[in-house]
Amino acid sequence: MRKMRYLALMSYDGTNYHGYQIQPDQRTIQQEVEAVLKRMHKGQTIKIVASGRTDAGVHALGQAFHFDSDLDIPEIRWVRALNAQLPEDIVVLSVIGVSGDFHARFDVAEKWYDYHIYNSAIADPFKRHYSAHVSHPLNIGAMQKACEYLVGTHDFTAFCATNSNVTDSKVRTIYQATCKKTADNMIVFSVSGNGFLYNMVRIIVGTLIDIGYGRKSPTVIKEALVTLDRNTLGKTAPAKGLYLKKVVYNKN
Amino acid sequence: MRKMRYLALMSYDGTNYHGYQIQPDQRTIQQEVEAVLKRMHKGQTIKIVASGRTDAGVHALGQAFHFDSDLDIPEIRWVRALNAQLPEDIVVLSVIGVSGDFHARFDVAEKWYDYHIYNSAIADPFKRHYSAHVSHPLNIGAMQKACEYLVGTHDFTAFCATNSNVTDSKVRTIYQATCKKTADNMIVFSVSGNGFLYNMVRIIVGTLIDIGYGRKSPTVIKEALVTLDRNTLGKTAPAKGLYLKKVVYNKN
Repeated sequence: MRKMRYLALMSYDGTNYHGYQIQPDQRTIQQEVEAVLKRMHKGQTIKIVASGRTDAGVHALGQAFHFDSDLDIPEIRWVRALNAQLPEDIVVLSVIGVSGDFHARFDVAEKWYDYHIYNSAIADPFKRHYSAHVSHPLNIGAMQKACEYLVGTHDFTAFCATNSNVTDSKVRTIYQATCKKTADNMIVFSVSGNGFLYNMVRIIVGTLIDIGYGRKSPTVIKEALVTLDRNTLGKTAPAKGLYLKKVVYNKN
Repeated sequence: MRKMRYLALMSYDGTNYHGYQIQPDQRTIQQEVEAVLKRMHKGQTIKIVASGRTDAGVHALGQAFHFDSDLDIPEIRWVRALNAQLPEDIVVLSVIGVSGDFHARFDVAEKWYDYHIYNSAIADPFKRHYSAHVSHPLNIGAMQKACEYLVGTHDFTAFCATNSNVTDSKVRTIYQATCKKTADNMIVFSVSGNGFLYNMVRIIVGTLIDIGYGRKSPTVIKEALVTLDRNTLGKTAPAKGLYLKKVVYNKN
């Protein structure tokens, strides 16, 4: 049978992984998925290409990847076949056939991330791997105000980890950025954009936490888009609160 | 200073514990809490007495325990002092002084448990330690009907693990039992009663799942309260979906 290209969506709990990308002697998401595909293809190596990496401890609700296969499996059976062999903390949600020139990284139009901040005097043992805990009450109004400065097309150099090896443009477009308190003392920061620099969401959140505390003004965000100075912003928030929520692709 | 008795409430994620009760060479909740109290009391052993045990993998939202101490610590500081030394998956929620004849087990008037069933075609990696996953759609109406037969004072012999060493009465009173579907495909079974036999909630849930599948009629519950036959009921549902939610004490 000729090779077909497939686009898959998966959700994973990143707690026990050293991030998405394959690394020697480390447990990673890519390694686990490729190991299952290799078994399904009788020892043949099948590379997967994701929408982008996620760091150690970062979670995914809807990570996308493509792969090529000559196995004659109906699309509906792929999900069951993969999940039967994957560890419980990685779940494939859907697999669909796509055209041979589709690319899970190059064709990304938009990505959505969520960040969970558990804002309560006392920690919750069930949220310890799935949120950043902040015991001091945060001012959501100030955080929401700061979010508004993020929206639009800006040079996000100040919001990029200084050890990043991206040497090209750091201009990105943010379509939406909001902070909302949910019923159980969880503050959810949601952001969508056409692309994100290394650690960008976590630096935004670290800064929003400082703003919520009252240690920084919401305008530091606006100013950092002009000064491009990383030092005016907050710390990088912990990985465990971050979720890659959704990847939107260009129509071909 | 003279000894004072304290009543504490705690929440724990039971995933990484071999249950509540101290056992040789096993990590348990009781052992972790007593180790912290021992450090706070300069090497003196301080026993804690809980409302009851929880099995390996069972969680608690509001487990209660008492202990005696001659430390001169204001009540409000106990919580912070304990949480500063406890592992992240055990959190003390409150500590209050009680009279010297209060007993966290003997004075229990009522206990509340929740059981979470994740009822979705595809598993959710974030719920793998916190619910039982059932992919077949369950009939909640039938499960709710079965719940009604539980309420009242009955002999629950059929709902008790056969390796239980309780030789006295297996009559218990159930005050409330409900099954509700929440927004995200979670079915929550909630039950309160004056006491529960070993594995009783998990045997009820295993039976409710069979009823939801259509493999058993809701009336098996009613019948088992007469026949007292464990074999007519479902399997013991997995520990990981069970939460000790609340303990209510008699007024002295």
